[in-house]
Amino acid sequence: MDSINSLIKSFSKFPSIGPRQAAKFVSYLLKNKMLLDEFIKNFENLKIKATICNQCFMNFDKENNNLCPICSDKKRIQNQICVVEENEDIQVIEKTKIFNGLYHVLGGTINPIKKISSTDLTIEMLIKRIKNLQKENIKNIEIIIATNPTSEGELTRLYLEKELEPFNIKITHLGRGISTGSTLEYIDENTLINAFKNRV
Amino acid sequence: MDSINSLIKSFSKFPSIGPRQAAKFVSYLLKNKMLLDEFIKNFENLKIKATICNQCFMNFDKENNNLCPICSDKKRIQNQICVVEENEDIQVIEKTKIFNGLYHVLGGTINPIKKISSTDLTIEMLIKRIKNLQKENIKNIEIIIATNPTSEGELTRLYLEKELEPFNIKITHLGRGISTGSTLEYIDENTLINAFKNRV
Repeated sequence: MDSINSLIKSFSKFPSIGPRQAAKFVSYLLKNKMLLDEFIKNFENLKIKATICNQCFMNFDKENNNLCPICSDKKRIQNQICVVEENEDIQVIEKTKIFNGLYHVLGGTINPIKKISSTDLTIEMLIKRIKNLQKENIKNIEIIIATNPTSEGELTRLYLEKELEPFNIKITHLGRGISTGSTLEYIDENTLINAFKNRV
Repeated sequence: MDSINSLIKSFSKFPSIGPRQAAKFVSYLLKNKMLLDEFIKNFENLKIKATICNQCFMNFDKENNNLCPICSDKKRIQNQICVVEENEDIQVIEKTKIFNGLYHVLGGTINPIKKISSTDLTIEMLIKRIKNLQKENIKNIEIIIATNPTSEGELTRLYLEKELEPFNIKITHLGRGISTGSTLEYIDENTLINAFKNRV
């Protein structure tokens, strides 16, 4: 296969990108060849520097530690964990400044059609985190489940609520304000702030 | 800026990709780190191998020549040139096997809103090609204008028809079958075959 089609094939692996859009990306790159060097440099940097937080599974640039800047920040509320589907959701929530606790990235949702089960997500590690907090005798633990109000997000939330019930901790989810079927990252900041305030 | 945000910024430069989708690409890459090496290799190959045909401006992998496989193929009809907006359009037309002449990639359309004028396209080089064919005394030259039936595509076609009028050659465009507002690459093969047969 030639270099053009090889790269088209690689881009087609991205979520929701078909071969036609992939071909447009490659055409764009060939028209803007300076971008090629920028991408190669950025890919290499990502490969070397970016990693996943050992505690919350957020992507971040490692320096010396295995914990992301949020998990390392002792000023943040240590007994509130906001559970999100993906990395992108953290950025959306952080922008609102309504939440000052820690996060936990599930890495997706339970999805029977796509054969994604609870074991493909970081649920077991969330349970371990809660157990550790309880071992350290930390009180008033709250888990805020901020999955998207889609059917898969709701399924995941219900599963989580059931799994976390035995721990006798406060389990909330984002409250009124989020309309069913929408996804977190497309919600305006004010709606999201209200949803945090009205979590139930 | 960290490696994650640098790559998000690079992906955001692609046509029709916003920062949110760019972030999804980066998350996907971090979940599938083997893909990073594949991308680095493919970008480097593209940088070294891919080039633009000196005659028709199609992207291709250069070996020893400066002409693409289509322009180098002497079995193809040498006096028919199909003018397309983008590289992707050639692949769509080639799949139908209805056309066996040569191509010319404009590299876009005239677009007053985006400030793309005729001089940003390869129109001057198309005129040079036609002059050369006439110098070589090649008869029955036909230019098939296969721009998309969008308003920019139509504007470009009308401009081309006016510019090519003085050469006294056959100028056609794709005929009935293409519905206004659609783009070449999303048209099914049969419609495209009919459009070639019914070019006017």
